[in-house]
Amino acid sequence: MRPLTIDLPAWLDEVVDRSRAYRSDEDRMGVAIDLSRENVLRDMGGPFGAAVFESESGRLVSVGTNLVVRHHNSALHAEMVALMLAERQVGSYTLAGTALPRHELVTSCDPCAMCLGAVLWSGVGRVVTGAMREDAVALGFDEGPVFAESYRYLERRGVAVVRGVSREESRGVLELYRSRGGEPYNG
Amino acid sequence: MRPLTIDLPAWLDEVVDRSRAYRSDEDRMGVAIDLSRENVLRDMGGPFGAAVFESESGRLVSVGTNLVVRHHNSALHAEMVALMLAERQVGSYTLAGTALPRHELVTSCDPCAMCLGAVLWSGVGRVVTGAMREDAVALGFDEGPVFAESYRYLERRGVAVVRGVSREESRGVLELYRSRGGEPYNG
Repeated sequence: MRPLTIDLPAWLDEVVDRSRAYRSDEDRMGVAIDLSRENVLRDMGGPFGAAVFESESGRLVSVGTNLVVRHHNSALHAEMVALMLAERQVGSYTLAGTALPRHELVTSCDPCAMCLGAVLWSGVGRVVTGAMREDAVALGFDEGPVFAESYRYLERRGVAVVRGVSREESRGVLELYRSRGGEPYNG
Repeated sequence: MRPLTIDLPAWLDEVVDRSRAYRSDEDRMGVAIDLSRENVLRDMGGPFGAAVFESESGRLVSVGTNLVVRHHNSALHAEMVALMLAERQVGSYTLAGTALPRHELVTSCDPCAMCLGAVLWSGVGRVVTGAMREDAVALGFDEGPVFAESYRYLERRGVAVVRGVSREESRGVLELYRSRGGEPYNG
């Protein structure tokens, strides 16, 4: 059977600086927001970006943007792309391996139901979000069956969650998407 | 950036018969269960299989098994593989396009939180499951934050759900996995 090949835009590497450490949540969120903005400006798809960092060192491990429409693949949310690439990088299906430093996912918007589940299986120890669920919903995006209890489930499994970091800037990219005529592709 | 390439086992094509129509839920579930069993017998990973069908014609569109451990990719649950391949096949990020027949996902076990979210974005109009959540949990697999309300959410979005079809046979594959020393990889 022909492999499932997901081509990744070359600019994903070009718009981020991998030579520096990202110390604060706001620094890390800046990467996710930059990615989300570039995704809009380059007409790649939904206004969402994400990145995986090593929590302690602040090293940038992987990045992702929403590639759903271009790639004919509804699973390619920014978080999924970033998590799959991080796992490829460490060579394991889990970022929680004993030989690995703690990892975290930083995403420009609250994850949808699919991505929230994926967070759990990825082995990241922390999630940081920018825009809130209601910001995405206001734009017409559906976030799926995510409830307060869903976040508590993650926390009980040892995944810390911090929401709404640089929320206004993240939301600004959602507005930019709308102002350019971008439609929610799964309305 | 190097593409993300997911190599698919050649036997995925060999263990299913694409020349016939699958009329009943039990017929369709048989495909998902066969895939789950082969995945165990070939030591490919978790004891889960899934397939996408055209609801009306019973035509088999795509198949998937759990490839998480082998592929170092925690997103590669059977349902995700089958849905991504179905979308590739129709050339769209949604199986709910107006020019397309209605599609459905048949999976050998209740979907986890990630896969339940993915169902919504895939555009399938129906989900049929085999083994129940508690059967997977009894084996040590975590299903994530899925609640009764999650299923109601799908139904409100027009996705019909039928659970527990050929449950005993599906559960038998979970038992087979355990009897061969298979461990839940994300326990």
